[in-house]
Amino acid sequence: MTSTTAIVSHEPKELMKWEWSLEEVTLTAPGEDEILVEMYASGICHTDILLSSVPARTLGVQYPKVVGHEGAGIARAVGKNVQSVSLGDPVLLSFSSCSACIQCQESHPAYCDTFGYRNYVGHDKSMFMDSEKKIWSQFFGQSSFAKHSIVHKSSVVNAKDLINNLDELKLFAPLGCGFQTGMGVIQNITMAVPNDTVLITGLGAVGMGSVITAGIVGCKTIIAVDRVKSRMDLAKQLGATYTIDTSEVGFTTLDEAVRKFVPTGVSIAIDTTGVPTIIEQCVQATRARGKMVIVGSPPMNWELKVRAGQHLNSGRAIMGCVLGDCNAQTAIPQLIKWYREGKFPLESFVRYFDAADYETAVHKLESGEVIKPVLVWKH
Amino acid sequence: MTSTTAIVSHEPKELMKWEWSLEEVTLTAPGEDEILVEMYASGICHTDILLSSVPARTLGVQYPKVVGHEGAGIARAVGKNVQSVSLGDPVLLSFSSCSACIQCQESHPAYCDTFGYRNYVGHDKSMFMDSEKKIWSQFFGQSSFAKHSIVHKSSVVNAKDLINNLDELKLFAPLGCGFQTGMGVIQNITMAVPNDTVLITGLGAVGMGSVITAGIVGCKTIIAVDRVKSRMDLAKQLGATYTIDTSEVGFTTLDEAVRKFVPTGVSIAIDTTGVPTIIEQCVQATRARGKMVIVGSPPMNWELKVRAGQHLNSGRAIMGCVLGDCNAQTAIPQLIKWYREGKFPLESFVRYFDAADYETAVHKLESGEVIKPVLVWKH
Repeated sequence: MTSTTAIVSHEPKELMKWEWSLEEVTLTAPGEDEILVEMYASGICHTDILLSSVPARTLGVQYPKVVGHEGAGIARAVGKNVQSVSLGDPVLLSFSSCSACIQCQESHPAYCDTFGYRNYVGHDKSMFMDSEKKIWSQFFGQSSFAKHSIVHKSSVVNAKDLINNLDELKLFAPLGCGFQTGMGVIQNITMAVPNDTVLITGLGAVGMGSVITAGIVGCKTIIAVDRVKSRMDLAKQLGATYTIDTSEVGFTTLDEAVRKFVPTGVSIAIDTTGVPTIIEQCVQATRARGKMVIVGSPPMNWELKVRAGQHLNSGRAIMGCVLGDCNAQTAIPQLIKWYREGKFPLESFVRYFDAADYETAVHKLESGEVIKPVLVWKH
Repeated sequence: MTSTTAIVSHEPKELMKWEWSLEEVTLTAPGEDEILVEMYASGICHTDILLSSVPARTLGVQYPKVVGHEGAGIARAVGKNVQSVSLGDPVLLSFSSCSACIQCQESHPAYCDTFGYRNYVGHDKSMFMDSEKKIWSQFFGQSSFAKHSIVHKSSVVNAKDLINNLDELKLFAPLGCGFQTGMGVIQNITMAVPNDTVLITGLGAVGMGSVITAGIVGCKTIIAVDRVKSRMDLAKQLGATYTIDTSEVGFTTLDEAVRKFVPTGVSIAIDTTGVPTIIEQCVQATRARGKMVIVGSPPMNWELKVRAGQHLNSGRAIMGCVLGDCNAQTAIPQLIKWYREGKFPLESFVRYFDAADYETAVHKLESGEVIKPVLVWKH
């Protein structure tokens, strides 16, 4: 058993109010398909907060548990079935998949048959409180909000040939979720081409990833929507041709605001906010034959009402998307390449916080002040 | 002015009850962009019935009018701006588009900005009753339920090099709507490949067109759904690997029935029925990353409720589709080529009726006994 420190998420006493606390925990030795990772850094994503805020058993979620799914660290013990990583290798972590189902076999691990179970739930076999009380871990195969964690091999990208130093390991920690999602929505889901007119609502990690990738693809019109001025300014520097401030135009008239720039509607609309009114407006703002992609998590059980006759006549596609349909083994190296070429300025998004200071980090994420807070563990 | 006979559609006195009558009408000379077509035959499509059954002004619809949009005939007078057709040429008719808007310029005329107006409404400038009372015509640019009609040049495919005799002109009349739609859904919208598992609900002209095209593409699993046994038998001969009879399994458990054949769900689902419960079941029967296409007209204002969170996680696309996104200039020759190669046995679908016997023809279409009734005008 290894002793370590983790941010333990307890069942919220108030609905949608996460309760985390820094606690001493113990870990088992890694199983045959697992790796003990000494965690150096972990990005915080809205999904960590969302799945720490719902009642127990919603979506299968259990408490107490450890979330965190944008981890980066060093392999300190390696199970015997792990081929991809050796002792001491730096690793970047992403999501977990089974490698056996049809979707995995067809190289679409984000749609793995066991995705929900593996990533949103995890298991209660490797982390304990007071040496006996089970803690749910392996959230996204990793539970990276811990100084050490037992990680499933499927979540691991070997970073040995990808990083130059430990500072880069920390900087690249958040690549395995939001940023790759944003890239994948453009490259894998909408397959944008230069002629596309692209609307992106919400300028967090996903939205920024999409703005940059649309710019790299060469899309001639990129409309970036948010309510935080600093984010819109940054989006403009990164390729957005127009910005719309919803704190000025409101949510319900977004379609109208978009059509001032593109009167026929956009050919691609990507919602990363999950806000129902914005999703509805994105559908309306999509031109005939256009693609509207729901990427941000909408409220649970919320139903988008699609006027079927209008939908038929518009020839639109309303698409769902998990993790941009990315395979982290190729997506993370791609993002690092773009970073080195100066196209993906990660430093503009990332702000580091001491792991113990997670509360400040989350608040700055929620206020929009920081696009990607990264918790750092000192070793 | 030319005198001729037409099936005139009057505003229904009872909701959803079409009222047609055979009447003498007069026609103007064709305008610069128009052709006087001596009509030999016209297929009947559900859209003719639907748009004859709604109250005036619904979707812009007017009465009295002449519908019919699967016409075939001979050009008897040609406007001076018409380049594609000469006097005496046989023509096959399809839908009308403007050739100027972005969608037309990008070769997607089924999404022409003026599609609704041109095809569902038409105009009141070329056909009259008692020499003065206006009749709305140019339905789909053609109003082919008339012995002669003034047709817009955009609806015309020159059949001079496509047909061998007048019998073929009649046989090919219905290619410009349902059959090309069915082909286009497979080729242009879902871009099916052999590995796809395809569900097709409703075995009218559209559904049969999809079954045949999926077979030609080589899709390994094709599930054809209807409630008329003869249609399912025919679908099996034409490439369907499984059939499901909704008169046996019911509508609400279609998903379950489909998953007996394909447990993970199909990668492509195409609804040609427009029946809300069937559309909902088609969505449910679609596997992760699959495409569900709404092709059949659902009830006006009906809303498909999409559970947005589930949709996101499924990575599905719910798509609308008009006319299979076909361009009749290429789609009709393609279908004729397949017919000559023995792959598209039009004779199995078509039954001829004297134009005056439209009532019997419609009833046989509605009962499912005949897949494609074709009205024939004697000259």
